[in-house]
Amino acid sequence: MISSGASQSYALAELALRLELPFQGQADLQLTGVAPLHEAGPGDLSFLHDPKWLPELARSRAAAVILPETMQGSYAGNALWSKNPYLSFARVMQIFYPAPACEPARSALAVLDPLASIDPSARIEDFVRVDARAVIGPEVWLGTGVVVGAGSTIARGSRLYPGVKVYANCSIGQNCILHANAVIGADGFGFAESPEGYQKIPQIGGVRIGNNVEIGANSCIDRGTLGDTIIADGVKIDNLVQIGHNVEIGAHSVIAGQTGVAGSTRIGSRCRIGGQVGFAGHLQITDGVVIAGQSAITRDIRQAGVYVGVIPAQEARSWRRLVARLRQLNRRSQDSVAVPEKSSANEE
Amino acid sequence: MISSGASQSYALAELALRLELPFQGQADLQLTGVAPLHEAGPGDLSFLHDPKWLPELARSRAAAVILPETMQGSYAGNALWSKNPYLSFARVMQIFYPAPACEPARSALAVLDPLASIDPSARIEDFVRVDARAVIGPEVWLGTGVVVGAGSTIARGSRLYPGVKVYANCSIGQNCILHANAVIGADGFGFAESPEGYQKIPQIGGVRIGNNVEIGANSCIDRGTLGDTIIADGVKIDNLVQIGHNVEIGAHSVIAGQTGVAGSTRIGSRCRIGGQVGFAGHLQITDGVVIAGQSAITRDIRQAGVYVGVIPAQEARSWRRLVARLRQLNRRSQDSVAVPEKSSANEE
Amino acid sequence: MISSGASQSYALAELALRLELPFQGQADLQLTGVAPLHEAGPGDLSFLHDPKWLPELARSRAAAVILPETMQGSYAGNALWSKNPYLSFARVMQIFYPAPACEPARSALAVLDPLASIDPSARIEDFVRVDARAVIGPEVWLGTGVVVGAGSTIARGSRLYPGVKVYANCSIGQNCILHANAVIGADGFGFAESPEGYQKIPQIGGVRIGNNVEIGANSCIDRGTLGDTIIADGVKIDNLVQIGHNVEIGAHSVIAGQTGVAGSTRIGSRCRIGGQVGFAGHLQITDGVVIAGQSAITRDIRQAGVYVGVIPAQEARSWRRLVARLRQLNRRSQDSVAVPEKSSANEE
Repeated sequence: MISSGASQSYALAELALRLELPFQGQADLQLTGVAPLHEAGPGDLSFLHDPKWLPELARSRAAAVILPETMQGSYAGNALWSKNPYLSFARVMQIFYPAPACEPARSALAVLDPLASIDPSARIEDFVRVDARAVIGPEVWLGTGVVVGAGSTIARGSRLYPGVKVYANCSIGQNCILHANAVIGADGFGFAESPEGYQKIPQIGGVRIGNNVEIGANSCIDRGTLGDTIIADGVKIDNLVQIGHNVEIGAHSVIAGQTGVAGSTRIGSRCRIGGQVGFAGHLQITDGVVIAGQSAITRDIRQAGVYVGVIPAQEARSWRRLVARLRQLNRRSQDSVAVPEKSSANEE
Repeated sequence: MISSGASQSYALAELALRLELPFQGQADLQLTGVAPLHEAGPGDLSFLHDPKWLPELARSRAAAVILPETMQGSYAGNALWSKNPYLSFARVMQIFYPAPACEPARSALAVLDPLASIDPSARIEDFVRVDARAVIGPEVWLGTGVVVGAGSTIARGSRLYPGVKVYANCSIGQNCILHANAVIGADGFGFAESPEGYQKIPQIGGVRIGNNVEIGANSCIDRGTLGDTIIADGVKIDNLVQIGHNVEIGAHSVIAGQTGVAGSTRIGSRCRIGGQVGFAGHLQITDGVVIAGQSAITRDIRQAGVYVGVIPAQEARSWRRLVARLRQLNRRSQDSVAVPEKSSANEE
Repeated sequence: MISSGASQSYALAELALRLELPFQGQADLQLTGVAPLHEAGPGDLSFLHDPKWLPELARSRAAAVILPETMQGSYAGNALWSKNPYLSFARVMQIFYPAPACEPARSALAVLDPLASIDPSARIEDFVRVDARAVIGPEVWLGTGVVVGAGSTIARGSRLYPGVKVYANCSIGQNCILHANAVIGADGFGFAESPEGYQKIPQIGGVRIGNNVEIGANSCIDRGTLGDTIIADGVKIDNLVQIGHNVEIGAHSVIAGQTGVAGSTRIGSRCRIGGQVGFAGHLQITDGVVIAGQSAITRDIRQAGVYVGVIPAQEARSWRRLVARLRQLNRRSQDSVAVPEKSSANEE
């Protein structure tokens, strides 16, 4: 699978033109695929975006390489010079391996409510169910077993992989990708305690997802209680992520796998959130915040920057000594440290 | 979506009667929906359950407000007085936005084993599969693509959203809600090491879920090895939660998103567990325990109370200094702290 | 459910023969099922693998018990003597409760692409979709609603429970078990930042899963960017686990629930990873590593052993004191501790 599957080959000069990059070497060199430096063979284009791979470059059998433009003069082979080789790699991958086109189709084994509106250019695979008043836009691709609830809309060019469930009254923008078994619009987790047990608070808001959003497999975006949960344009969400009710995620923010955002928290735009991060509810996180994986975010973050909250694991004996030492410290400090009681508000 | 969708309007006096609350103001005021203070418009009922929102109350255009009864005398508008405004909000939401009724139906594209028993009042949507000896009770709603395995029972009034999978020999009580793609009864994670690799231990127990339980999207409740995994009445489980084999969750406990409970742990009743909490296996957690999000629970908890185990994230430089400082401490204490070796038992 | 459901009964001597264990007592004693010591009744076989259960043994009504061979002479009842009673328990469970055989079937409501190759001994349940060039081997069992993408192969004897989605160009070995709603081969999480937002990097690698692998419900194994994500023979993965693109998991490693492994990390063979562990990307973890639940792994691990990274939760006042104490320490050390700036590389 490494470099196979490319739909066609491209000459070096043609790629340079399409990528708007200067090149060096044999203009008509035919490139048939993309591969990492250490696996590339004849015909493959490769790339280097981190100087630590320079030894690989020397050994590589790649036919041509995307290199940082700062390396001009120090490499003699076929090359494309880029200010941002990683971005150029992404673009060249999109050229060699374009997403398959959405060929219009309507499975006879799909059930489309007569009150739903389905664009004729949409692709509706087997065992899909679209409920009343749903709107399926042009070139939308609903994979096998997708369910779109009443009144929900999926805009032009979006692809829902098999098993995605969209509850009623949600909207998904253009050119989104939702991976298999993701769930959009399940009820937010809202209950009020009563003597007879918890009373469910009906969740009557929706979910609004912007354009160019990607959502990973088995991730969940809950609907709002009152008002909507909002995922802005360009947001990328990995697998198994939980987004609570009435959360807002700002444009072009990225959230890695298994992170959870509790209800009503607002995350700004262009944030980068690692995996397994937990956000308490009702927080405000400003734009441009970077958070390391597994961190616990229990307070507002008002300043862009990098935030960390995890102690790396250690060999067990060493770790146990640390924990014992912390207990000692704690015991010793028992009377000398004032503990602000208000900090308990965020604890749950 | 804020206040729309209510099926009908209610007079203030009628709501007061149904909620059994005293009211103040115009008895025949027609209320058409529920909205938060800052978004409410004419016709909307709103609520205030935390004094921090008092400034919002002053600015709100809500037609009437549910207020703490302690505020009587200090507010002149249309009001319902409640000992517990948040609970009254839940109840008024249930009045304005009742769950849709389960209209009996049987899709021609569902496959119901002739040996299954399906109540005529059940609603069976498309692409559902019900296996032999399963029992689907009155007014049970099986959404698109639900699978109910052999011998499993779903009791009166429960709703399984699209894509829920129930394995064989599980039971789900009355009036439960299972959100999309939840999985009930997959094999517990049980293997015995052998020279040829791990040997699977067949998981022949089941899952027993009580009445009024809600389980979130993409959550997993594993079946027991021998004996059952038990979720008692009134338990509320959020999305992406993992409940291991032979776990027991006591009545009216609440578990937030992405929490995991390892095998054979018993959690008491009326516990409140935050998100991303991890429980080791074979623990006993007593009733009324509250656990902050992301905490690691590695020992029994025998006393009700609040437990916390997470250090909030900090700006990266400050955090790194802390970690370096901890390493120093640890190095210094290397010989002076006795480490109890038995603590290792819980580590995995 | 405890001891019922066994398909037939076995004489003590016959079990001894099949398990290759010496026995003591009545050779023709008929055993009808397996149960834990405290729940076993007449006819039940039980087991003891930890001396802490000795008091249960004295009280048990089990007809026969699998015991450590070191106990010979100290127990007078019917017994099987084993070097490894837990492994013998697994094997006896497999005898009493064998996995149901895969009866060949092809649902009329499954959609099998004419270019797919389906072995006649396979079992294809309702609402299954198999795409072009997929290969479904002998005795493969595809549960209700399973989707197998174009060019993917499922080898002999594997069982995919309802709702499993396998994307295109993935391969699954022999005798694997994939639990409900697991997703194999969704796109890895790869994007390059650009002024117009993140650019998707097409993920053209696949997923290769070996033989005898078990993957839990709602778990996700992403496809590689270039090259494959690899899960070697005998690996056991629990529910809600996230395996990123180009990850490699070595043979006979075990990963508990909700753990996440970020892209390109390689985990060795015979590792045991607890639940909710997070691995940063691009790490090398050697063979035989044991990691406690919830640990954060941010660096290579080159030596087999036990690694821990979690501080157990405490009662809230005590915990808050600890956190306050840590802040004090940190403030005091502000100028005295050198912080290595390179440690930031792994933070995301």
